[in-house]
Amino acid sequence: MAITMYDLAGAEAERRFSPFCWRAKMALAHKGLAVETVPWRFTEKDKLPQPNAGRVPVIVDGDRVVHDSTAIAEYLEERYSDRPSLFGGDSGRGLTRFVQNWTETVLQAGLVGLVVLDIWRHVAPQDREYFRKSREERFGRPLEDVVRDREARLPAFRASLDPLRRTVERQDFVSGSAPSYADYVVFGAFQWARAISDFEVLAAEDPVRLWRGRMLDLYGGLARRAPAYGE
Amino acid sequence: MAITMYDLAGAEAERRFSPFCWRAKMALAHKGLAVETVPWRFTEKDKLPQPNAGRVPVIVDGDRVVHDSTAIAEYLEERYSDRPSLFGGDSGRGLTRFVQNWTETVLQAGLVGLVVLDIWRHVAPQDREYFRKSREERFGRPLEDVVRDREARLPAFRASLDPLRRTVERQDFVSGSAPSYADYVVFGAFQWARAISDFEVLAAEDPVRLWRGRMLDLYGGLARRAPAYGE
Repeated sequence: MAITMYDLAGAEAERRFSPFCWRAKMALAHKGLAVETVPWRFTEKDKLPQPNAGRVPVIVDGDRVVHDSTAIAEYLEERYSDRPSLFGGDSGRGLTRFVQNWTETVLQAGLVGLVVLDIWRHVAPQDREYFRKSREERFGRPLEDVVRDREARLPAFRASLDPLRRTVERQDFVSGSAPSYADYVVFGAFQWARAISDFEVLAAEDPVRLWRGRMLDLYGGLARRAPAYGE
Repeated sequence: MAITMYDLAGAEAERRFSPFCWRAKMALAHKGLAVETVPWRFTEKDKLPQPNAGRVPVIVDGDRVVHDSTAIAEYLEERYSDRPSLFGGDSGRGLTRFVQNWTETVLQAGLVGLVVLDIWRHVAPQDREYFRKSREERFGRPLEDVVRDREARLPAFRASLDPLRRTVERQDFVSGSAPSYADYVVFGAFQWARAISDFEVLAAEDPVRLWRGRMLDLYGGLARRAPAYGE
């Protein structure tokens, strides 16, 4: 029986933009596991199976419910240990945490300041008020103000990608010659941006963009087929 | 026969401050290999064994000469594959490159702006002119000007350590429950700073400082015993 996954959707049910859900979907594909996704909106907290923390992804695998993308990756690695590893051992698992922490404190923090208004434009009508209010509280100003100078901030954002850029210009994936969970974590952030924004954050010749292309090609173009902007 | 390593020294022969040499010394200790270091100064390029790129570390292992810290780590991993792994497999090796690229573009780039004048104060008399000239060309201004506002820049530097901080507050080492080469790469940068500067870059309660303490304890206190400032 396929695993069921609750996946954040926009106004269009097929537009899936959560970076954390993309991590989980890529991890499921890495393990070769079939998944049926259920579109879910921010304000549908009561529709999630128990236990949950009011957020997605949540997966249901037989009688097991697992929530939180990191817990899902750990669960899949242990439950499906006979399938390709997401971490490549204990050191790989530890180092993946560093990449994840970089993704959350640098990459996602930078991206949200560029595309947060575009997210609001794409969320379901019933989510719009919740989304604007919660994000404007976080930023302390209207979303329109947050993104107003995004063109001017783009060079600094691109410079902040130097650790990633140097890595993927010398090897195909963040994890070396083959992708692993660390790649999915970083990719989830870029897929989030391109799912809801036509503001291209990467220059055409950027090695990061070439890597993103390799990620879009994985698993029969799983992420490339999903509704998104740009390539 | 012990491996010989050419190791950057200051005015005092025992003050060893190259971050790249610390990577190599910690990697040698990880592999349980004896090493005899030869103090070397920036202006002693003709004293290095061939081949070299005019920089240290350079190691001599029997009839093999290997230069460049990354090449040395790769050499040790292959030549001494029966000893504890520096990378923990292919994914670990790939992810270590990400940590290394972060260390070089964020951590070392931040640190040098705080301590470069202190380096100049500690280099050997014959290296002082070379060091000042080459670094002032790089910065485009006198070293005194580079460090003048370092107190004001300290909060931003500490904030830039967030990916590292989040990692080592949740696990003992960058690589997980045990240290590996990625830890030595990051640690080399902090050991470089404390070897030549009494400017404490980490707050007392910072999880990064607690991790640095764990690194200083490794291998019988190898790095703690070396001439340095602070703890």
